[in-house]
Amino acid sequence: MNLQGIYHNLKKDLQVVEAALVQSVQTNHEQLFASASHLLKAGGKRMRPVFVLLSGHFGKYEIEKLRQVAVTLELIHMASLVHDDVIDNARTRRGRKTVKAEWDNRVAMYTGDFIFARALEEITRIKNPDVQQILSTAIMRMCQGEIEQIKDLYNSDQSLRRYLHRIKRKTALLMAVSCQLGALVSGAVPEIVRNLNAYGYYVGMAFQLTDDVLDLTGEEETLGKPAGSDLRQGNVTLPVIYSLAYASPSEREKILAYLHSRGKEGSVEEMIAIVQKTGGVEYTLQLSKRYLQKAINSLECLPFTHERESLRMIAEFIVTRSY
Amino acid sequence: MNLQGIYHNLKKDLQVVEAALVQSVQTNHEQLFASASHLLKAGGKRMRPVFVLLSGHFGKYEIEKLRQVAVTLELIHMASLVHDDVIDNARTRRGRKTVKAEWDNRVAMYTGDFIFARALEEITRIKNPDVQQILSTAIMRMCQGEIEQIKDLYNSDQSLRRYLHRIKRKTALLMAVSCQLGALVSGAVPEIVRNLNAYGYYVGMAFQLTDDVLDLTGEEETLGKPAGSDLRQGNVTLPVIYSLAYASPSEREKILAYLHSRGKEGSVEEMIAIVQKTGGVEYTLQLSKRYLQKAINSLECLPFTHERESLRMIAEFIVTRSY
Repeated sequence: MNLQGIYHNLKKDLQVVEAALVQSVQTNHEQLFASASHLLKAGGKRMRPVFVLLSGHFGKYEIEKLRQVAVTLELIHMASLVHDDVIDNARTRRGRKTVKAEWDNRVAMYTGDFIFARALEEITRIKNPDVQQILSTAIMRMCQGEIEQIKDLYNSDQSLRRYLHRIKRKTALLMAVSCQLGALVSGAVPEIVRNLNAYGYYVGMAFQLTDDVLDLTGEEETLGKPAGSDLRQGNVTLPVIYSLAYASPSEREKILAYLHSRGKEGSVEEMIAIVQKTGGVEYTLQLSKRYLQKAINSLECLPFTHERESLRMIAEFIVTRSY
Repeated sequence: MNLQGIYHNLKKDLQVVEAALVQSVQTNHEQLFASASHLLKAGGKRMRPVFVLLSGHFGKYEIEKLRQVAVTLELIHMASLVHDDVIDNARTRRGRKTVKAEWDNRVAMYTGDFIFARALEEITRIKNPDVQQILSTAIMRMCQGEIEQIKDLYNSDQSLRRYLHRIKRKTALLMAVSCQLGALVSGAVPEIVRNLNAYGYYVGMAFQLTDDVLDLTGEEETLGKPAGSDLRQGNVTLPVIYSLAYASPSEREKILAYLHSRGKEGSVEEMIAIVQKTGGVEYTLQLSKRYLQKAINSLECLPFTHERESLRMIAEFIVTRSY
């Protein structure tokens, strides 16, 4: 089975989730409908719903309960993306213009608020208070992550620990919660819920580390955005942090000049070359692979089913992908 | 006792709330700290904390518990204000430039997200799941209110019911929750909690109705923003809705032309004159007084204390104030 096979098996239930997502952005406000639909149509891998559905198979699988959680998680993710694009001044995402580029910051702000309101609405419909609590806490931590990201733009003095904490909040947390809740609402036993949560966390970390490498080394056509976007936006990722520590003094000065001038001194291409040469890309990929291994180890206690195999393959794909 | 007397009695505990608010917007991000502090320093009447503290006296008054709820509610209110200013394109509030005017929409967006994240952080610290649930639902409804507001900008086809629903979400709901939670966390008996909730709701409705009149009839110096700001921003309030129904055909046409052209045809001053002449202001004030009466009636079952008298006076003040 390959990745297409995994999506093929989930096809029917992913369509249920997709229909519910389309339903949840319905509004008779033309602008809001246009911008929210724009976001929805930009697609994406729907990884959070996929994690919810696969994890649901480790308990009593009920699509109704899982749909609710999957839609909420994807809405939270979408709302965070549209606000992130405002903060990062991003003009393209997934090969399409961002909401802020197609319209403006104001529209992007209230589109995010709108989608977020719909996510909160879904949460209040969920009857399980534990699930509500987990989702509220996740939203709070993601909001804090957004703020940490602002704080760290163009910041040349970042530790590995600080970076890992930031990508945890930005990405890993919501993936962990996706796996956790899929299992929890299906009544899986606590040990399985805990291990799926760990799996989601490790996969999320591996995903973001790979993403940060691809941003530097990928091609614009496959990335759906220009290479080096992170650096252009002042987002200092691990390959760069590593290079700041291990580049030659003169190269280190060049990176510092770029960051301190907020991108005015030196070029992104030059920075990418330095990072590649210093080994920042290699180091980050190694770390990503370590998280991948931890993700796979987390699956060990689960019954050996198709879904466990699917989760393993997704983890492998995440680290080896080129987009 | 007058209004100053009420604030004087609460002074010590309001200072505790204020200190906690200052604490909660601490961040080493210069821009965020500047914009959040700007918002905090613009002050305001701190009505939600006042309601929390007064309501707390109808149970076992513990400032620590009340502070937590008061800070959360004021943060939610502040976050909603800064995003509202983006939607309304508002340049001044409380006599100061808004965050979006002092900086830009982008800063206003993430300042709102930041304050909101801090509010969510406070919520997760509250141990009572009922309180968490009430706050989450209130946030959701306020977010939805924000979206309804966008939907209704320059909309000439609005019913009284639709308007009331909108101001309920915009204002009355958070005031109701402030009174409810002050009593609830203090362990007041359910009947008192329910009546304080009703009081807060009615006071909130009366407050917003008066606010919408003052926006049309007030002076710029006392309002802290230009008169007719609502109409300038496309916010169609009850005095205007009433006039659309009862003005002469030619005057009705003038209002319609103004709204349909999104403020390009006709002047705000002309619209205000029509609304005054048709009786829209008078009608709205009458309705406000009816809500005031309901607010006061809700206090009847409460023990006759200083705090009950304070709540009554605040309600009276809200309808008779000129700012």
